[in-house]
Amino acid sequence: MSIAVIYGSTRENGNTEELTEIVIQDLDVEKIVLRNYEIKPIHDQRHEDGGFSPIEDDYDGLIERMMKHDTLIFATPVYWYSMSGTMKNFVDRWSQTMRDSNFPNFKDQLGTKKAYVIAVGGDNPRLKGLPLIQQFNYIFEFMGISFEGYVLGKASRPGDILIDQVAFATATDLNLKLKDQ
Amino acid sequence: MSIAVIYGSTRENGNTEELTEIVIQDLDVEKIVLRNYEIKPIHDQRHEDGGFSPIEDDYDGLIERMMKHDTLIFATPVYWYSMSGTMKNFVDRWSQTMRDSNFPNFKDQLGTKKAYVIAVGGDNPRLKGLPLIQQFNYIFEFMGISFEGYVLGKASRPGDILIDQVAFATATDLNLKLKDQ
Amino acid sequence: MSIAVIYGSTRENGNTEELTEIVIQDLDVEKIVLRNYEIKPIHDQRHEDGGFSPIEDDYDGLIERMMKHDTLIFATPVYWYSMSGTMKNFVDRWSQTMRDSNFPNFKDQLGTKKAYVIAVGGDNPRLKGLPLIQQFNYIFEFMGISFEGYVLGKASRPGDILIDQVAFATATDLNLKLKDQ
Amino acid sequence: MSIAVIYGSTRENGNTEELTEIVIQDLDVEKIVLRNYEIKPIHDQRHEDGGFSPIEDDYDGLIERMMKHDTLIFATPVYWYSMSGTMKNFVDRWSQTMRDSNFPNFKDQLGTKKAYVIAVGGDNPRLKGLPLIQQFNYIFEFMGISFEGYVLGKASRPGDILIDQVAFATATDLNLKLKDQ
Repeated sequence: MSIAVIYGSTRENGNTEELTEIVIQDLDVEKIVLRNYEIKPIHDQRHEDGGFSPIEDDYDGLIERMMKHDTLIFATPVYWYSMSGTMKNFVDRWSQTMRDSNFPNFKDQLGTKKAYVIAVGGDNPRLKGLPLIQQFNYIFEFMGISFEGYVLGKASRPGDILIDQVAFATATDLNLKLKDQ
Repeated sequence: MSIAVIYGSTRENGNTEELTEIVIQDLDVEKIVLRNYEIKPIHDQRHEDGGFSPIEDDYDGLIERMMKHDTLIFATPVYWYSMSGTMKNFVDRWSQTMRDSNFPNFKDQLGTKKAYVIAVGGDNPRLKGLPLIQQFNYIFEFMGISFEGYVLGKASRPGDILIDQVAFATATDLNLKLKDQ
Repeated sequence: MSIAVIYGSTRENGNTEELTEIVIQDLDVEKIVLRNYEIKPIHDQRHEDGGFSPIEDDYDGLIERMMKHDTLIFATPVYWYSMSGTMKNFVDRWSQTMRDSNFPNFKDQLGTKKAYVIAVGGDNPRLKGLPLIQQFNYIFEFMGISFEGYVLGKASRPGDILIDQVAFATATDLNLKLKDQ
Repeated sequence: MSIAVIYGSTRENGNTEELTEIVIQDLDVEKIVLRNYEIKPIHDQRHEDGGFSPIEDDYDGLIERMMKHDTLIFATPVYWYSMSGTMKNFVDRWSQTMRDSNFPNFKDQLGTKKAYVIAVGGDNPRLKGLPLIQQFNYIFEFMGISFEGYVLGKASRPGDILIDQVAFATATDLNLKLKDQ
């Protein structure tokens, strides 16, 4: 097993990253920290004659790194009851990659992978984070990715996540499961 | 009544815009087309000593235009079962505006407004668009905005939206309601 | 095409029935009005040695009537943000029927059918009825039933439904679609 | 603190009850096992001249027992992606109790209580149980009940629940929280 963590948070050492540390403890993972790269929004050209124009930014390189791994962990703060815009722009671009001859089997290859979601929010995330989980579920379902589990944590100020016992227990359990594979 | 439409789509004359035209027929609206502006992702500095640093882009001007109106229509294609990343980055920045002394009563003022959502997707939107509607509901609830209604339309290729009779009927009904106010 | 309507409401001529009348106008349907029959709650004996014991009530006869049709319309008031307990007891019993030698291909046969949901509630049904629609979606998905559409109407007092223009338009459109098949 | 557990399952010693045992370990609780009582479906007479007719069954006695406690735990198997019909009939009847002069402050008193949900299902409950949680959330919100937490467990055959580590950890944590109050 080989793991990539895709980070959607926009500040360093936030609660999402802290909770993710529990999940990946003693595991060798590749960290893809989206905020450190330029990822332009998709420009929907699906229906134009020439299809999508190539975009100059860091996105393709990130996809190459992600695709090397069979297990993907999407770690995002809950911003306005969904993933961060930074992560959303990354996911939106998948529509282009699905039609990109440089990634000929993108969807098929994604469809062999397993995924987890870690999301941390301040406003009742175990209830108000449910639409976010359902969105990820539909994304994974569309791609054929197996949705293996998620952790919803509650935190606002730095360090808060350490007092969310349910998130801690769930993250610990997930860590054991990952180590077992 | 005074209406602003905030457009999240990334191509011109798409199905979302076409469906929105039915909703705003014979109404005077201000169109805020997000793709025509630079909107940087939020950098979460809520917990830093100096708070948020000012960001140089077009965002503040768009907020000023939006805030002049009492009714807001959020019109977005369904990208990966949520609003477009372009619109998400716009909404994410509200977290900064809530702490921006240039917009001293941002949340209170938003809390006096009414909102509608128009979303068009290709993959069973009347079911798989429900998490998106629930997400908008939580956003509006947090801000105190009154969520007055929504239209979910089904379309993929240009022009498809015209054959979605339920969306057409719902959009027409919404147009009558808006004209009546 | 042959249609059965399964009614979950507990009073006559309620708003759910009134809205359903629009959907089935000029169509020949079999009406199965659950409140007029005795339907005992399921007793979960899936894991007992002898399996389920036969239950003496009207349920089997209702299933026989339902199974004769290829299109099913589930029409229920929204009671506490889900289908009525009367309809829920009817659906719960499907778990027994799936193991009943008198209905040897129950699940396979259901999996050839199309279904619609009509639900009417008083408390913001177009938002708070969404979990109900998602529940029906999972039920149909499990059985292999094709979920063809739904109408959510808003009404509390008798006759209220007539002023819900969106529900009226959606129901009318559904009626045209059914007549066309 | 004083706790009532309302059980919706229809067989003895099922997985839902087993998981609930972890939550209530070393706590003094009143167990209300709905399957042992007669609870008729509601007959919606809200809009009839004389209002609701009294119903002869065990329901009122169960409400009296439930109302003595300040913390309510609703423990139900996930039947068809929602609470059991047995529990649903119990909740449906609240609409009558709200208009019953024998329970003059029913809604106000419920609005002072805290509630938890424990639900166990076999078909991917941590995803497909989310509409059930959202439904309970709306129920509690309507009544003013504070929704304090939930446990979703995965199990089909007797005893399965013991191998769901996340459910076990969440239940244990909830037990500590309850003992602490």
